[in-house]
Amino acid sequence: MCRLLISFRPGRRKTQLGEQAVLNFKIRYKKQLTQALRPHECHSNCPPCRKFTRLPHLAGTEQNLKYAEEIMKEWRDFGLDSVEMVPYDILLSYPNKSQPNYISIVDHSGKEVFNTSLAEPVPQGYEDVSNIVPPYSAYSPKGHPEGDLVYVNYGRTEDFLQLEREMNISVTGKIVIVRYGKIFRGNKVKNAMSAGAKGVIMFSDPADYWATGVKPYPDGWNLPGGGAQRGNVLNLNGAGDPLTPGYPAKEYTYRLNPEEGVGLPKIPVHPIGFHDATHLLKNMGGQIPPNNWKGALNVSYKTGPGFTGDFKSQKVRMNIYSNNQVSRIYNVIGKIRGALEPDRYVILGGHRDAWVFGGIDPMSGAAVVHETVRSAGKLLKRGWRPRRTVVFASWDAEEFGLLGSTEWAEDNARLLQERAVAYINADSAIEGMYTLRVDCTPSLHTLVYDLTKQISSPEDGEEGVSLYESWHKRDNWTNDRDAPRISKLGSGSDFEAYFIRLGIAAGRARYTKNKKTERYSSYPVYHSVYETFEIVERFYDPTFRRLRAVAQVRGGLIFLLADSQVLPLDANEYADSLRKYADSIAHLAQTHAELMKTYNVSFESLFSAVKNFTNAAKDFHERLQTLDKEDPLQVRIMNDQLMYLERAFIDPLGLPGRPFYRHVIFAPSSHNKYAGESFPGIYDALFDIENSADPDKAWREVKRQISIAAFTVHAAAMTLTPPA
Amino acid sequence: MCRLLISFRPGRRKTQLGEQAVLNFKIRYKKQLTQALRPHECHSNCPPCRKFTRLPHLAGTEQNLKYAEEIMKEWRDFGLDSVEMVPYDILLSYPNKSQPNYISIVDHSGKEVFNTSLAEPVPQGYEDVSNIVPPYSAYSPKGHPEGDLVYVNYGRTEDFLQLEREMNISVTGKIVIVRYGKIFRGNKVKNAMSAGAKGVIMFSDPADYWATGVKPYPDGWNLPGGGAQRGNVLNLNGAGDPLTPGYPAKEYTYRLNPEEGVGLPKIPVHPIGFHDATHLLKNMGGQIPPNNWKGALNVSYKTGPGFTGDFKSQKVRMNIYSNNQVSRIYNVIGKIRGALEPDRYVILGGHRDAWVFGGIDPMSGAAVVHETVRSAGKLLKRGWRPRRTVVFASWDAEEFGLLGSTEWAEDNARLLQERAVAYINADSAIEGMYTLRVDCTPSLHTLVYDLTKQISSPEDGEEGVSLYESWHKRDNWTNDRDAPRISKLGSGSDFEAYFIRLGIAAGRARYTKNKKTERYSSYPVYHSVYETFEIVERFYDPTFRRLRAVAQVRGGLIFLLADSQVLPLDANEYADSLRKYADSIAHLAQTHAELMKTYNVSFESLFSAVKNFTNAAKDFHERLQTLDKEDPLQVRIMNDQLMYLERAFIDPLGLPGRPFYRHVIFAPSSHNKYAGESFPGIYDALFDIENSADPDKAWREVKRQISIAAFTVHAAAMTLTPPA
Repeated sequence: MCRLLISFRPGRRKTQLGEQAVLNFKIRYKKQLTQALRPHECHSNCPPCRKFTRLPHLAGTEQNLKYAEEIMKEWRDFGLDSVEMVPYDILLSYPNKSQPNYISIVDHSGKEVFNTSLAEPVPQGYEDVSNIVPPYSAYSPKGHPEGDLVYVNYGRTEDFLQLEREMNISVTGKIVIVRYGKIFRGNKVKNAMSAGAKGVIMFSDPADYWATGVKPYPDGWNLPGGGAQRGNVLNLNGAGDPLTPGYPAKEYTYRLNPEEGVGLPKIPVHPIGFHDATHLLKNMGGQIPPNNWKGALNVSYKTGPGFTGDFKSQKVRMNIYSNNQVSRIYNVIGKIRGALEPDRYVILGGHRDAWVFGGIDPMSGAAVVHETVRSAGKLLKRGWRPRRTVVFASWDAEEFGLLGSTEWAEDNARLLQERAVAYINADSAIEGMYTLRVDCTPSLHTLVYDLTKQISSPEDGEEGVSLYESWHKRDNWTNDRDAPRISKLGSGSDFEAYFIRLGIAAGRARYTKNKKTERYSSYPVYHSVYETFEIVERFYDPTFRRLRAVAQVRGGLIFLLADSQVLPLDANEYADSLRKYADSIAHLAQTHAELMKTYNVSFESLFSAVKNFTNAAKDFHERLQTLDKEDPLQVRIMNDQLMYLERAFIDPLGLPGRPFYRHVIFAPSSHNKYAGESFPGIYDALFDIENSADPDKAWREVKRQISIAAFTVHAAAMTLTPPA
Repeated sequence: MCRLLISFRPGRRKTQLGEQAVLNFKIRYKKQLTQALRPHECHSNCPPCRKFTRLPHLAGTEQNLKYAEEIMKEWRDFGLDSVEMVPYDILLSYPNKSQPNYISIVDHSGKEVFNTSLAEPVPQGYEDVSNIVPPYSAYSPKGHPEGDLVYVNYGRTEDFLQLEREMNISVTGKIVIVRYGKIFRGNKVKNAMSAGAKGVIMFSDPADYWATGVKPYPDGWNLPGGGAQRGNVLNLNGAGDPLTPGYPAKEYTYRLNPEEGVGLPKIPVHPIGFHDATHLLKNMGGQIPPNNWKGALNVSYKTGPGFTGDFKSQKVRMNIYSNNQVSRIYNVIGKIRGALEPDRYVILGGHRDAWVFGGIDPMSGAAVVHETVRSAGKLLKRGWRPRRTVVFASWDAEEFGLLGSTEWAEDNARLLQERAVAYINADSAIEGMYTLRVDCTPSLHTLVYDLTKQISSPEDGEEGVSLYESWHKRDNWTNDRDAPRISKLGSGSDFEAYFIRLGIAAGRARYTKNKKTERYSSYPVYHSVYETFEIVERFYDPTFRRLRAVAQVRGGLIFLLADSQVLPLDANEYADSLRKYADSIAHLAQTHAELMKTYNVSFESLFSAVKNFTNAAKDFHERLQTLDKEDPLQVRIMNDQLMYLERAFIDPLGLPGRPFYRHVIFAPSSHNKYAGESFPGIYDALFDIENSADPDKAWREVKRQISIAAFTVHAAAMTLTPPA
């Protein structure tokens, strides 16, 4: 896998300090980059790919600390200026080793007549491995709820609304079963709690986790019927460690009482595979799901008048014994001191902790970080040093709610908000085998396009074709412009605190599936024991060229952000995106055209602000053309305007009820943490407004949110005008 | 008064851009400054002193707009690079012109047997002036509460506690009468509301507003018996305009419903002078105030068993008809573009609006701003230009809750938090005739001392003595160090949003009374119609040398902050202050030594953080000694560390219940807005903790606040370490 190694070579740099770099934004890095991205052959048994996936390394375990120590040692050996281990003591959650979690079907006498499996069948070659944690829902409280089962499709907001409003079924006091997919599992649990359920079971339905014509692992990359998806079921909304919201979880830090912890579910939750799910579902009783709810597992085995749940007088009992406990985690932080602007930080971060082996999640991404460090170290030894400081991070406890990265962001918030130029995320480098997927802030669009034109397509039969061209052909953004698709950032990985809380320009890149033809969520074995090194080697990327291409994108972004004299950020792209988002939210509001009139709601102020921003961005980039690049202060001043542009969208008051989601333009959707919502304050205020109990108040909130959005965009525009 | 004019002269500057300035912190500006502070003779009838005090210019009135327009025009004529008028539409409060406010004593039949006066007797020379607003409490709601009167001394928290706990008197449903002084009037009203009162009357007691041996105005500077103190009675806690908390009050801005406005009193409030107060108090009934509550007006005219309030069967009725209304206000903002660092802002701001003429408050301060602009303009015309941008502000509606300055801070928050170096406030330049008074952030201590050594004492008989020496002799900080006293910033003037919300280094300077011998609060005529130009000219500063000295301090600070190559901010002084504050709060906590043990409360983490900060500050200033001042980026980087030091103390989550008070080290006291409290989060958590209803919860909050303080000081220390 070490073919993904990339090299940073100074190319035509004339001085150590880099002042002679080609300056024009469009062409400045072409030759340099061609050198920088040249692939190297790897040595055998390269650590990030093979070594760090041999053993389970769950956050908070001995093994994950050992890997951290190895990484720290290697980064030091590679030649970084500093590498340190940064520990935090945070709330984690584990199954009880002596009392496994399971779910039963119980008969009328309370006898358990069927129990779900206690573990996944271990894949070949890993039979002797200990410390494989069985599938569980992290942070589920202990409990033994028993009751009727109600199926609520994916457990989305709209699914619960459909159940209540159209099917007239209440889940109060019942146990809810939902299939995985579509939205973040924590949102499913939140919805079930709000609806009054007393437990949640989540299963992987083949309709979502089974690709046609593909065999289950180890013969193919599908999820075996005994496999299940681990994962946390928190609703943190960016708080980090549940017991220390807003502050780093250091030894001296005050901790909330465990029952006050942010985002903890109040009802038991457990995940199962589709073999077990079939047993539960066929004993459900007479709930008749609508056609659009039917997955591969038919959930209606008996017709009858509405929900009864007493089929065969059987109920379901959950048996959950997991524990929450404060445990120590370890981030590894390495730095290359910037030659000219040591106080400007470009960050490449990805997590190290895995549910089991982490063959894809996260080690396919952690490998990218590791090899980028190795390459940078080689260059350092040859006398190269980037203009700005580069920070490399191996985060811990991402799987428990992005905790390692969020605690470090809290710890370093003051430095980051004054000094961070950009954050590039390096979670799983592959989730499919089709083409590139990039989610990033609009100001990085141009850089991503320019960069991918310099990288070769990794696909067979595309020799001489650039990654950009391949990506463009496979995922053209035809609705919008003639370019490959770039999406908004949602959440679900470690960029969250950096982008959504602190307002640092951020992006992520990975290889993905063909969205048009492939239905399954992510990759089917996601968060199961079957995420091994071999699944990557055999199926996802046998030549390792896809991983290398992703590495070149991530590393190339870091290289260019750290070493360009003028920051390669594009305010005009932000203007374009703002216009689209404003059009889109205004269009959505128009579905309530009559009420808009009644309550005198207008988007005029927002459109005016976007226009203002567009003009300011255009003027800014025109002035940038005439910047005297020999004058270090003038360059710094305009770079500061570019760097602080993203920060300008931060509202210190945060979004309603979500104080750590402070970006006015982007937030994780309130209904699905994985998805990004634009103008989230307005969107949430409009959500289901026709059913509001107090329409006057609800429409006043819409107006307030439009006002906040308009002001924020105006304020951001001001940051681009000449500073005095 | 224009003898206060100061001149900025380039002195020995060798180039227009100022790069040759003397670099050593201790000696760098000595000769330059001697030139800069050289006094000039003024021309006759100088605007800020005479012209702008001729007519009442209350915020939101035509006349205050006219003055704004004149100031804008003159600043343009003086030669600033830009001057603009910045309007906001905010909630103001005025008496109803056709229905004046007053308070009555009513007999048993409800007949009004005594009414308080409707206006103050107008001073000589102003008899024909219209639009003098009578004394009122701005933002009092309309209302006609009637009831028994209870006297609660100064209306402080401790006064109400004494009333309830020691005297066993409840004010529920009663009207409270309190004397002015000791604390901000809004806090008195808040306390009365919390205690259940249905109205508040405030009076000026001669014990607090009458200097012995001084005649009332116009024969002296004491407050006549018919004079009364106007003032707002809000509890905004830094929110700015009550209807747009957190956002600038622009035309498009969403406004809260009037009844939702932040900090508005819910019960009628009215101020009276001591003539009227005597009538009310002598009809009070049998409340026997403790000896320490007795002012010059004896409030117990009848002894009896406890409070009865039915003396002569008379009650008090308040008749309040004031209106709150959204009105337009105008800030005037002028700028000098910085030659080298236009994106670094040094701000000199003071308010223009006055309750009536504003002879002292604010025009003695506005004059300083005006003449500083004039002087800077002269220098600009000679080719001088400061290194950094200087912003001059004439704020509106300060008297209504610091509204003009806070709205502008909200409007420009993003620019200010990235770019503002310091804010110097220019409210009233005199409140006494004895010596200098400086309140500022610790990092400005050294600069203030160094600067005042270069300024001459304005006092008769002190020729050849520096302001520093005179001040040192008159107000030596003997408890602490051998230097003149410098105090913490509290609030009550326009620096609040800049310092407490945004974390910009701030300071204020004025001439004050002799605290050891003079009991009266501020100056007796404060906020009355007797604050005229003549009271300054005849009594406070006949030679105008005191005003000039204050102008030299304020202008000198601006000059040095804007033009020094290395910012004259001192992190070591911050370290010293933090140590004192930590000692002080830990000492306070030790009054609960037993409970501290019981609940396992320790200040260890805070002391450790202060030690860490002290070392970081020391190392920083040592590195500063070896800074290569020929390298513009290296200078900028260390200056940025100095600039952002104050910002590091900002907690985005704010203090409990006070989201706009975000400075962890300093906040206005929760019990007196005028006073500064250090480690306010810890202080408030400890307040009255022995009487807490839930001691466990209360002590947990103490621990949480210590943890936040320790983390914040640690985080601030990190900003001073080498950036990579």
